[in-house]
Amino acid sequence: MNLASPRNVQALPFDGPLFSICSLVNNDSQYDRMLASFARYGFSEEDTEFIFVDNRGGNTFEAYGGLNAMLAKARGRYIICCHQDVELIGDGAHELEARLDELTAKDPFWAIVGNAGAGPAGRAVRISDPYGDDQHVGTLPAVVHSLDENFLLLCRERLIGFSADLAGFHLYGTDACLQAELRGFTAYVIDFHLRHHSRGNADASYFECMRRLEDKYGRAFRSRRILTTFKPLYITANAWRARFWRFRKWQRMRQLRLRRKQGKA
Amino acid sequence: MNLASPRNVQALPFDGPLFSICSLVNNDSQYDRMLASFARYGFSEEDTEFIFVDNRGGNTFEAYGGLNAMLAKARGRYIICCHQDVELIGDGAHELEARLDELTAKDPFWAIVGNAGAGPAGRAVRISDPYGDDQHVGTLPAVVHSLDENFLLLCRERLIGFSADLAGFHLYGTDACLQAELRGFTAYVIDFHLRHHSRGNADASYFECMRRLEDKYGRAFRSRRILTTFKPLYITANAWRARFWRFRKWQRMRQLRLRRKQGKA
Repeated sequence: MNLASPRNVQALPFDGPLFSICSLVNNDSQYDRMLASFARYGFSEEDTEFIFVDNRGGNTFEAYGGLNAMLAKARGRYIICCHQDVELIGDGAHELEARLDELTAKDPFWAIVGNAGAGPAGRAVRISDPYGDDQHVGTLPAVVHSLDENFLLLCRERLIGFSADLAGFHLYGTDACLQAELRGFTAYVIDFHLRHHSRGNADASYFECMRRLEDKYGRAFRSRRILTTFKPLYITANAWRARFWRFRKWQRMRQLRLRRKQGKA
Repeated sequence: MNLASPRNVQALPFDGPLFSICSLVNNDSQYDRMLASFARYGFSEEDTEFIFVDNRGGNTFEAYGGLNAMLAKARGRYIICCHQDVELIGDGAHELEARLDELTAKDPFWAIVGNAGAGPAGRAVRISDPYGDDQHVGTLPAVVHSLDENFLLLCRERLIGFSADLAGFHLYGTDACLQAELRGFTAYVIDFHLRHHSRGNADASYFECMRRLEDKYGRAFRSRRILTTFKPLYITANAWRARFWRFRKWQRMRQLRLRRKQGKA
């Protein structure tokens, strides 16, 4: 027998670079500016890999599918999904790692961070873009339930991905936040400053993506009875239905117990 | 500047063995029997890595946390999470790969498979265990919404994980099926035959895990308004609430349009 010797998970090293930087590219000069700025601010060859989806000759991938394809191959501990039109202008690899270490100390269950989003405390933003230089909204790091897509960073070990049943170029940051929350993880806006050379683009396709995301999770969150090989499970967000199902379970248990007693008597 | 050259995602090779086989171990002789049977049926050193959580001196990890830790480190294309008390008795690496290729041809969006579960068509089982030899229930492969934990296989590229806010030794197969479904993927029972040397163990902790899973997803599936940096989203499984929110959105849009018209007049 030719058996690989089993290894204790606690002795396994992390194998891969520190950062994977994934972008959908359809504009060489913007992407080159982005790459040059990452190199300038400390993302060196040793600890960074850059991966791209080539959309220069037309869209080979939309964002959800393209990013999922890149996540599947990315080997970095932290996977950055960013737009080709961002540019680092001061903060770099060193600052990013320090912010992430601080966040881990505060909340070891974070799975995603970004530089703009909204949460229970309202909007949280740290960015320079055509709407204003050096914007700083909210107390950072801030818990959020949605993130702008110009800059997203996913912790690879958390195994968060984008919905395979959604598509398009909008709201995949919000989708990823929802996915993280459903796994039991959190999302944050952190103080990592860069420039985004775009005003965003809220055209008709934005509202189409919004409708699809609302529809998808509306269906996904339906009440359901899950059969298993043993007892069925009941999952519902409806408090009355939950109460009714719990009552039915209790009723069945009581009948079972009664029948057992009668059998013995 | 020392810049790593960016790579097209479509040119990136898959990097890792074919199988990672992950188990929680607290019994050496059972685990040795399992390892020997995998080696006997074609899981060789070249294409398989074995990873374990060492629970021999007490539980260092429960199943959800331990399996998440192993998934984080596993490098295989297919990650098998199986009990230490399973034993291959005929089907091996070759048969498993063939079944998975067939499944991929039928449904490229599968993310998890197992050997026992239940779905829309009822129970689906392919196993030998103390309840019976060579059991074969249902038409396989069968779509399922729950899977028994004795043998689970996850496609690594799908990035499915177990809930970080659940714990214990039960129902993590059902949890993984739910997570896959929420991402837009499917789960199946396939015709891969092995022996499970256990009757299962539905003690009080089983019902505690069940209650926690129902509670967790009950909360996770609540209706919600998600603030973003642009427009808010509304997610609800409640058809009446969805209708009401859609009406309010339409109302606000109409008011906006009226105000714009008045501004122009």
